[in-house]
Amino acid sequence: MGRKPTKLKIIPLGGLNEVGKNMTAFEYKDEILVLDCGLSFPEDEMLGIDIVIPDITYLIKNKEKIKGIVLTHGHEDHIGALPYVLKKINVPVYGSRLTLGLVENKLKEHKMNNLHLERIKPGDIIKLGVFSIEFIHTNHSIPDACALAIQTPVGTILHTGDFKIDYTPIDGEMIDLHKFAEIGQKGVLLMMADSTNAERRGSTMSEKSVGVTFENIFRNTKKRIIVATFASNVHRIQQVMEAAHKYNRKIVVSGRSMINVVNVANELGALNVPDDIIIDIDQMDQYEDERIVIITTGSQGEPMAALSRMASSDHRKVEIRQGDLVVFSSTPIPGNEKLVSRVINQLFEKGAEVIYESLADVHVSGHACQEELKLMHRLVKPKYFIPVHGEFKHLKRHAQLAEELGMPKENIFTIQNGTIVELTKDYGKVSGSVPSGRILVDGLGVGDVGNIVLRDRKHLAEDGLMVIVVTISRETGKIIAGPDIISRGFVYVRESEDLMVEAKDVVRNALDSCGQQNVREWSVLKSSIRDALKDFLYEKTKRRPMILPVIMEA
Amino acid sequence: MGRKPTKLKIIPLGGLNEVGKNMTAFEYKDEILVLDCGLSFPEDEMLGIDIVIPDITYLIKNKEKIKGIVLTHGHEDHIGALPYVLKKINVPVYGSRLTLGLVENKLKEHKMNNLHLERIKPGDIIKLGVFSIEFIHTNHSIPDACALAIQTPVGTILHTGDFKIDYTPIDGEMIDLHKFAEIGQKGVLLMMADSTNAERRGSTMSEKSVGVTFENIFRNTKKRIIVATFASNVHRIQQVMEAAHKYNRKIVVSGRSMINVVNVANELGALNVPDDIIIDIDQMDQYEDERIVIITTGSQGEPMAALSRMASSDHRKVEIRQGDLVVFSSTPIPGNEKLVSRVINQLFEKGAEVIYESLADVHVSGHACQEELKLMHRLVKPKYFIPVHGEFKHLKRHAQLAEELGMPKENIFTIQNGTIVELTKDYGKVSGSVPSGRILVDGLGVGDVGNIVLRDRKHLAEDGLMVIVVTISRETGKIIAGPDIISRGFVYVRESEDLMVEAKDVVRNALDSCGQQNVREWSVLKSSIRDALKDFLYEKTKRRPMILPVIMEA
Repeated sequence: MGRKPTKLKIIPLGGLNEVGKNMTAFEYKDEILVLDCGLSFPEDEMLGIDIVIPDITYLIKNKEKIKGIVLTHGHEDHIGALPYVLKKINVPVYGSRLTLGLVENKLKEHKMNNLHLERIKPGDIIKLGVFSIEFIHTNHSIPDACALAIQTPVGTILHTGDFKIDYTPIDGEMIDLHKFAEIGQKGVLLMMADSTNAERRGSTMSEKSVGVTFENIFRNTKKRIIVATFASNVHRIQQVMEAAHKYNRKIVVSGRSMINVVNVANELGALNVPDDIIIDIDQMDQYEDERIVIITTGSQGEPMAALSRMASSDHRKVEIRQGDLVVFSSTPIPGNEKLVSRVINQLFEKGAEVIYESLADVHVSGHACQEELKLMHRLVKPKYFIPVHGEFKHLKRHAQLAEELGMPKENIFTIQNGTIVELTKDYGKVSGSVPSGRILVDGLGVGDVGNIVLRDRKHLAEDGLMVIVVTISRETGKIIAGPDIISRGFVYVRESEDLMVEAKDVVRNALDSCGQQNVREWSVLKSSIRDALKDFLYEKTKRRPMILPVIMEA
Repeated sequence: MGRKPTKLKIIPLGGLNEVGKNMTAFEYKDEILVLDCGLSFPEDEMLGIDIVIPDITYLIKNKEKIKGIVLTHGHEDHIGALPYVLKKINVPVYGSRLTLGLVENKLKEHKMNNLHLERIKPGDIIKLGVFSIEFIHTNHSIPDACALAIQTPVGTILHTGDFKIDYTPIDGEMIDLHKFAEIGQKGVLLMMADSTNAERRGSTMSEKSVGVTFENIFRNTKKRIIVATFASNVHRIQQVMEAAHKYNRKIVVSGRSMINVVNVANELGALNVPDDIIIDIDQMDQYEDERIVIITTGSQGEPMAALSRMASSDHRKVEIRQGDLVVFSSTPIPGNEKLVSRVINQLFEKGAEVIYESLADVHVSGHACQEELKLMHRLVKPKYFIPVHGEFKHLKRHAQLAEELGMPKENIFTIQNGTIVELTKDYGKVSGSVPSGRILVDGLGVGDVGNIVLRDRKHLAEDGLMVIVVTISRETGKIIAGPDIISRGFVYVRESEDLMVEAKDVVRNALDSCGQQNVREWSVLKSSIRDALKDFLYEKTKRRPMILPVIMEA
């Protein structure tokens, strides 16, 4: 009698239908492997929220099964949730050189020590329970990015991580196409691949092309050069340093995360800093403008980042002036377009020359476009496919691409976070789901800000609030103090005295009504106040501030 | 002895260093002409604000000098502030056919009647005091857009309004290049021109090209077609209707502003609706999918607009399903990218096919790019130039363009709202400024929400609030009720009871301290409570809710 084949379960917990908080669980019998552990940034409606992490209810429930966490690369949407997750599930973490360096930094900031972190390098194979994981070198907008080939008793899973194909990479290390070809030949059961640029035709340009642009810019100007880029884009920083070196300029590194990454990358050998090229920001005025390059944070227009503060005259050490040439070696992440525009305008107003993506080739993407994705699909030749790392439109387009290449529709799973895809050698299907979703982090609180709190913040943000306080005698039930009205974020009180006086009358009348009907139930008193005031205020102002009646008894 | 020449003053009050709230005053001796009267949409930080209008302090101060308001076209950023401004300065308003139709609608909505509105047509010349204004037909993304040639004793001003050059316009009426040539030959003192696309090389494509795309789409599908576009883009709507007519489809118009504009434009003859093509939304299910086109609002992902509600299953009459083809015949206005993306993803998830700008030629801009701007500069040959209608980077680039064409730098004024440019036949210079800025409109309140209210809303939005109420005996100064704590938008109270209990202790201790030092001054009591609680809460939660201590005496 044939035994029922054991199923491999693939359970994405983040990263689908979004760009952010990537995390996937692979489960075979009673062993779980976790791939990536990222955060995402709050949506505009998530007022006051700092970051968003995946809901790991499923992992906590099965914590004794978890063998470890393997990381594809060091971007925040792949490692940012580690400090929170490791507090609940303390398992070994495996990552490449720079990836682990950034993880160590992050855990240090959270004052977390004595965790099991293991560095691996491309070509290494690690065994975690029944899973055998090989790390494969890829190209991305951060060094040391890896794809993972995960061997299981059911078959091999190839997870690309985030990748592009760069035929002329900065560090000379092209994505290991030979390895993908080899693995594809041996047979791959399932591929999970990066869908971010699935809508874009053609191929991503090589990182080297930006270096060419830098050379042209540096060669042709005597101005002080300021380059804003993603701190994690070490290869971009490398090219800035090489252009600076070639044209005899010193480098100032500006911005906390930029300084951190440059240090870590330099120590680990992921960045080759030419000797004596870096000077301290305080030494800058010892040099002419044409001898200086400042590499800085702020490419996304983040108000607190270095470049934004320079642009708004808020930076203690750097003043933007005519004679500055600012390069945004970046692209605005969706949602940040206006912030970036604001900084660009401020820089122009200060007389700087500003170069950005729409004016010159100063940025290339780190994600594969359609031709690169097609190559990956053809090399790997997987039986099943799950598009990952994208909004729905990206996943859908990527699924369509796979279909155009000949994959049967039923072998392609365009799913949501929490879906369980069950695979055996013979079949693949969606077999259910686990709890999934997002946990909001605000200050020290993890998960304690939910819909109600957000809803209240939204209400307060829109129309402010009115607090009505009245003290009632315990014996007689009559008002012995108040009603006092305090408002914030509603109207400018000094100009609205009449409104406040009338509002108090409205409250008194509502309470008198209740008194006449001998109502003493506080909840009823409060709703009477709230209803009366709500109608009054809307009629007078067409605004709906939050109304908080407070009754005290004395 | 020569008399001092009277100066012409040009005073922009809105539209510079922003895209929005366009308004300019022209002043000669004791006469003022106002050009356009627009609103702008609130920035993200302007919580709860509905719209923003120009600060017209200067106009109110000089109201008896104002001869009238002339309008270039019917977009909100050119007419949207009229209901508010006319309440303060009731002067005649002049505009073209559709422009005035939209203004009438708007004033009706604000229940404003008996205002002096006068329709003019291209070629008409009106005399307002010393100003003689000729309306000149242009192409833009709304019909009946005009440039204005304003004759003054000092010389002619040419204001382009918003424009592009369309050699194959939908209504057959190309921008009146002959008139610009003629006026240029006669001599133009000053040109003020649209800078929106000054950074873009080449030319804007003709509106007709979108019609070609529509034909291709309509010809090749049997699906129900839904087209989202700007309600004001009547020529786009015209092309949708013509493609629908050609391929035997009925039209449903959806969304309040879309229905309004289609009605007004149809009545005025700016839109030619094929007979019997429009059906009511309730008749839709009498037809097969391939016989239907829905023209709808929601191209900017506005949550309350029709398409967004269809996408989130919130629309009472239309459900998005497989078999729908949705076209976004638009481009996301900066700031709206994520909103649009969200709707696109929702539509895809419902199984619809979605086409948008990055995938097909379904939209063209309404603003001139560099080649068109150069043509305008060369035809008009002005002596002086003020770039308008753009953020600083756009104005700067446009100024640079004028310089590249040979205009002396000192004749180009890249200025801010409120700046006075003084012109005579012999010189042009910046001669000072007037009050200018923005007025925030929230509900019925105009200008009463200022920095303090916004700052409070921001604080409440970030970390919520805590109200502490305590009643003190008038005689003894001791607490006779409370402290009670009410929080909103801070923590989920049911899970934070310990925190609330400790917080009350902190408050009691602070009050006891004050009691011991015999402090009875309320302001001191309140700051003691606030300081103690602030430190406590930050230590426990790393959050800073607004703290509102309320003391009652009984």
